[in-house]
Amino acid sequence: MPDLAFRPSPALDAAVIAREAFVASVFEALRAESADGPGVTRTSYMAGEQRAHDRIAELARGLGLAVSVDAAGNLAARFSGRRRDLPAWITGSHLDSVHIGGNFDGAAGVIAGLTAIAAMIDAGLQPERDIVLMAFRAEESSSWFVGRHGGHLGSRAALGLLWEGELDSAIHVATGRSLRAMMTEAGFDPARIEAGPPILRPVDYAGYVELHIEQGPILENRDVPVGIVTGIRGAYRVRNGRVRGAYSHSGAVPHEYRQDAVFAMSDLVMALDGEWARRRAAGEDLVVTVGRFATEADRAALTKVPGQVDFTIDIRSQSRDTLDGMEAFLRGQAARIEAERGVAFTLEPFDRSSPSPMAPALVAALEAGADGLGIARLTMASGGGHDAQDFADAGIPAAMIFVRNDKGSHNPDEAMEIADFMQATRVLANVLWAQAGKA
Amino acid sequence: MPDLAFRPSPALDAAVIAREAFVASVFEALRAESADGPGVTRTSYMAGEQRAHDRIAELARGLGLAVSVDAAGNLAARFSGRRRDLPAWITGSHLDSVHIGGNFDGAAGVIAGLTAIAAMIDAGLQPERDIVLMAFRAEESSSWFVGRHGGHLGSRAALGLLWEGELDSAIHVATGRSLRAMMTEAGFDPARIEAGPPILRPVDYAGYVELHIEQGPILENRDVPVGIVTGIRGAYRVRNGRVRGAYSHSGAVPHEYRQDAVFAMSDLVMALDGEWARRRAAGEDLVVTVGRFATEADRAALTKVPGQVDFTIDIRSQSRDTLDGMEAFLRGQAARIEAERGVAFTLEPFDRSSPSPMAPALVAALEAGADGLGIARLTMASGGGHDAQDFADAGIPAAMIFVRNDKGSHNPDEAMEIADFMQATRVLANVLWAQAGKA
Repeated sequence: MPDLAFRPSPALDAAVIAREAFVASVFEALRAESADGPGVTRTSYMAGEQRAHDRIAELARGLGLAVSVDAAGNLAARFSGRRRDLPAWITGSHLDSVHIGGNFDGAAGVIAGLTAIAAMIDAGLQPERDIVLMAFRAEESSSWFVGRHGGHLGSRAALGLLWEGELDSAIHVATGRSLRAMMTEAGFDPARIEAGPPILRPVDYAGYVELHIEQGPILENRDVPVGIVTGIRGAYRVRNGRVRGAYSHSGAVPHEYRQDAVFAMSDLVMALDGEWARRRAAGEDLVVTVGRFATEADRAALTKVPGQVDFTIDIRSQSRDTLDGMEAFLRGQAARIEAERGVAFTLEPFDRSSPSPMAPALVAALEAGADGLGIARLTMASGGGHDAQDFADAGIPAAMIFVRNDKGSHNPDEAMEIADFMQATRVLANVLWAQAGKA
Repeated sequence: MPDLAFRPSPALDAAVIAREAFVASVFEALRAESADGPGVTRTSYMAGEQRAHDRIAELARGLGLAVSVDAAGNLAARFSGRRRDLPAWITGSHLDSVHIGGNFDGAAGVIAGLTAIAAMIDAGLQPERDIVLMAFRAEESSSWFVGRHGGHLGSRAALGLLWEGELDSAIHVATGRSLRAMMTEAGFDPARIEAGPPILRPVDYAGYVELHIEQGPILENRDVPVGIVTGIRGAYRVRNGRVRGAYSHSGAVPHEYRQDAVFAMSDLVMALDGEWARRRAAGEDLVVTVGRFATEADRAALTKVPGQVDFTIDIRSQSRDTLDGMEAFLRGQAARIEAERGVAFTLEPFDRSSPSPMAPALVAALEAGADGLGIARLTMASGGGHDAQDFADAGIPAAMIFVRNDKGSHNPDEAMEIADFMQATRVLANVLWAQAGKA
């Protein structure tokens, strides 16, 4: 483990600050190339994402970095250090967005890494170790892929973390084609991912630092520009939930003969609401979301008892015990409601991703970096999943810097201030330099 | 009020029974001409409904009846009595179906009326009073029309019950055009409906009797073929309900910052569930249905706190007090949830149709008719709305005969047995004859 003490570089810090206009221009270029109504759409493994990759690759080449694309389509731009034999550092994030999303979720981390490297070059600093800027594919897999998959398909492919069969069971929502087909059509090499050792091997890398906008309102509400992430919540998920009852006449069928899918699902939602309140009161870390709750568009009607509801459930916590407890509660309540209301729930496939703690020493280095630069910071959990968790899961020390963001993510109203982004990027650049600048 | 005592006619009853093959052939013809996947689709004021009207008109002409079409497109086939100066009787129902519905809802009442008249002709019986078979348009208006309207558009148009502006505010779901435009394009005369006195005036008619399949499972579960209806439940309805919250990140936003539309609506549904149970236990007549509960198809996602839900609510009871009590409860709960969960409900337009009692003397005549024919019958409420209620609302004595039906209505699985239909039609024919056969 390298020495994680903070060594600030006034020249580097000044060079980061001087890149503010560059930063604004890159964000604007990405936005212009993927504008979609009120927001941006950069669809994973399709044209919107590709245009962003092309733009970042062009800028990286302009800085003299060695640009390559891996078998999964992830972009790597390598800033060579003096000691190519030492494990390198990686910084970056993803370039895809959700459908009609915001311009900052993902792209901010790539632009921050690019800016940190550009500032080192501007300041005439060459690190001992290589610093690799990476832009991952398909981090927004929950939006772009259905079927059986574990999310974050680009970074997990590079880290050798895809499940057996996942290349074929992850199905793109826009095309109905498998991840394998999407990669192949885009010119990448899924066979290499399947056959070879991981593209990113822990032995080759000293650590991973990712900047990302906060996706919740905590920094905004606490009036702090920068967050240092201690860990990423695990998520237990029902992606394709369904409850089936029976359609019948809304006026003519008495209560005792009904099998009402809406009452059944509402019962389950309120049961989750109550259990969530109980666990919050007990101090547990937990969020519960039923993002989709939909009767059938072509069969539901004012005058029909509803016979089917499709739904999703997303339960997240930093505690594995809490997640396991909520799963047991969910299954118990579904069984109760089936018996009481004459319906049948489908909760499978039930996805479980465990909480991913960030590397404590790297968290401490980021805290020290912010403190050393006089930048206010809050140490906090990440509620959202990020590529950083896959690095942690693969055994590469990982940490994250959050940037205050007023309006949440995954929507056109993301409202990150460039001033906050610059403060977070100063922390990123200085800490990267402190880590990679020496052997 | 005419004498309602039952006078059975053995010749007429035998003639009804002899029409069984005719009945089966008419149902089959209607089904063949409107088959749509597993069911039938006879869209109001469009081709499917029109084909059924054409078929019935042709059969009525074949019987020598005087066929006419009114300004709203309703079909009337008049069997002339000896005394054209006396108020006539009407029997009939509607010929439209819901989208991919069943073959019996509506059509059964028209075929029953046609069969009753055919049997009188077969038996050489001419009534004193005219008997008019009517086939109404657009009874399934809840399925076929959105916008502001009161349902049952065909019969209400003929009875002079349309609201001010309803010809323009009722919008057809298949075309997006107003009821006025649909009528005009089909060759009818909405200006006559607006300008003139009612097409069907209470002074001209002695009563209305409608046969219809039961839309619930009560006759099936009680093992009785025929129901005599005492009244039609009123319905209080939210046709275009919406609850707005705010979209946010499912993992990153803590409970206190959420404005979750699905939790809010589920809370409302479970509140209604509890109140319904309380009123059932107190012996009140009540059914409550949330037929539609839908997050936005293009914005909802596994990883987003849902910001909007669209819904319908249909509350029905034979008691106006119960309906008013449920409306007050609904509004109170919506206000509570708005305050607790940071959301905003839209419950307007809030439609109220009052319960419609059937004419007691005519109900008694139908009971006596079934009893006199030795046909088992159950006296019961109608949960569904029917054209009969509009006659009652207009001041024309009305009653209904239900036929046992195993699988509910508004779906392709409607399972009325022809044997049950024949028993109900025997009641209809004999009671019509008892009423219209004499001056």
